[in-house]
Formats: sequence, C-alpha cells, structure tokens
Amino acid sequence: MENTINEQTSAQVITPAQFLEHYQGHRRLTRKLIEAFPEKEFFTYSIGGMRPFSEMVKELFAIAVPGLTEIVSGKVGDFDEHRDFGNTKAQFLAKWDQDTEDINKLWAKISEARYQEHVKLFGQYEGSVQSSILYFIDNEVHHRAQGYVYLRSLGIEPPFFYDRD
Amino acid sequence: MENTINEQTSAQVITPAQFLEHYQGHRRLTRKLIEAFPEKEFFTYSIGGMRPFSEMVKELFAIAVPGLTEIVSGKVGDFDEHRDFGNTKAQFLAKWDQDTEDINKLWAKISEARYQEHVKLFGQYEGSVQSSILYFIDNEVHHRAQGYVYLRSLGIEPPFFYDRD
Repeated sequence: MENTINEQTSAQVITPAQFLEHYQGHRRLTRKLIEAFPEKEFFTYSIGGMRPFSEMVKELFAIAVPGLTEIVSGKVGDFDEHRDFGNTKAQFLAKWDQDTEDINKLWAKISEARYQEHVKLFGQYEGSVQSSILYFIDNEVHHRAQGYVYLRSLGIEPPFFYDRD
Repeated sequence: MENTINEQTSAQVITPAQFLEHYQGHRRLTRKLIEAFPEKEFFTYSIGGMRPFSEMVKELFAIAVPGLTEIVSGKVGDFDEHRDFGNTKAQFLAKWDQDTEDINKLWAKISEARYQEHVKLFGQYEGSVQSSILYFIDNEVHHRAQGYVYLRSLGIEPPFFYDRD
C-alpha cells in the first residue's frame, strides 16, 4: 500500500468506480438487446399481457438519469415512465448513449461517504444511495431478461448474458 | 462515530452484511417464484426453446453454495447444473432453504479484505470475489425474470419485484 487513500480503497467491498463499471457493463448488454430486436417487434411484441420491450426501456430511462440526478441534487423529481423518446430504435439508442454519458457525469458527483446516506427517490422510494442504485441495476437486469424471452420466442438468439463489452 | 471500526464500516459503499442481505432478499423473492409455479409447469413449461424454470433453479443451486464454498476454501470444484434434487417443488424448496443457511455460514467466513481478491471459480470464471458474487446475484435475477414471463404466460400473477421479505 502506497498511502492511506489506497488502503481505504483496497478495503472497500466494492469501490464507487467498480460499482459504476458494474452498472455500465449491464447497460452495454441492455443496449445490445435493443439492437437485437426487430424494429417493429421492439415496439409491439409482448407475451402474457406484458409490455413491449420499448416500454420497459422507457421505464429504465425514467429511473437511471432522473434517479441519479435526485441523488446528486437532493431535489425531488417526477417518476414518469411514459416520456416520449420517439418511435424508432435509433432514437432510443441515441437516448441510451446520452444517458451513458450523463450517468458517468452524475456518478462523479457522488462522494464515497454518500452511498450509505438515506434517500427517498421520486418522493416515495426509500433506501440508502447504494441500495437505490442496486435497485436501478436489478430492475434493468429483470426487464432485460424479459426481453431475452421475447427474443427467444421470436426465434432470435440474444447476446450472451456475460457479454458486457 | 464511536470508534475506528464503525468509521471503517460507515465508509463502505456496501458492507458485507448489506451485500449478504441484498443476496438473501433476492433469494427470498426467487423462492416465492418457485412457490408460485404450478407443480407440473415448474418442471415442464417453456417458451422459445428455453429451459423449464426447475432447470434454471438447478443452475442457481450449482452456483450459490458451490461458488461460495470455493471462495471460502480456495479449492476448485465442478460446475454441475444437472445435479438431481428430486422431482417435486417441495424437494427444491427444501434444498433452497438449506442453501439459505449454508450461504449465511459461508458468508461469515469471507473477511472484508477478501472481496477485492482475484478468484477463478470452477476452474474457469475469473474475477474478484465481489464481482463473482454480483454475478451470482445478477444471474439469479436474470433467470428469475424469465420465470416471471413463464408465469405471466400461464396467466399467473407473479410476486412484486420489490417484495424481498
């Protein structure tokens, strides 16, 4: 160990940088799922009365940047999973890539000490900063996996689950 | 802060105890999914050529306790997702509950400093202890979500995603 800062970092179960990379790795895989969907089915295909994958992605958009913005600013915002991001996959992918950059910028503003801080997001979801962000990620893994079933049901081979590049 | 140990803990992005509770919360939800399946469909129902949910659960069994056992012992074991746990939901639930206890016991043997240690599980999967355990959890969330689609497709209302009690 070179100094105290390194010792502190090496004692972390997960560092903020690893936590961000974990999230962005999952987001890269979700982006591949969006790409793998046929244009029409992305907006229309459904099983068992569930939402089309595009609607699930709109929920992810409503959580990621808005949620992190609240964590950083402390200002309560609206949870709105019905925002309009266009009606083409290309528009969704452009929004996705913008969010990737925004998430990196917001993450840099969350100090290490804040992960254990209590927050109440969108005026209703209570937890610590770390548990809230884990929820964002888990919720994305959950809906993306439903997209996997949609793709399989359409006869399309989805990307490997471990493909996070 | 009462003492140095508490200061150390409060500086963690996520503590080992929170990480365990995160895992066990997800496991409690997965257990509810197993319970929600009709007996027959748990072993037979499938969409798009995917495995029945029972086979996915066998994969989870092959990862959780065997993976943590390797992390604790350092001894390489086999990855075997085809082990026989019986042909009733009750047998799977009994194995699930045994694993819950075993996971708690194994977790207690992983010191805080070890989460950043490099491991190669089942002779092939490389990463840190923390990234490996996150993978165990993500993989469970992923397959459980596929079980959600199976249930919806069968006309069965699954438990809420946020229900981790």
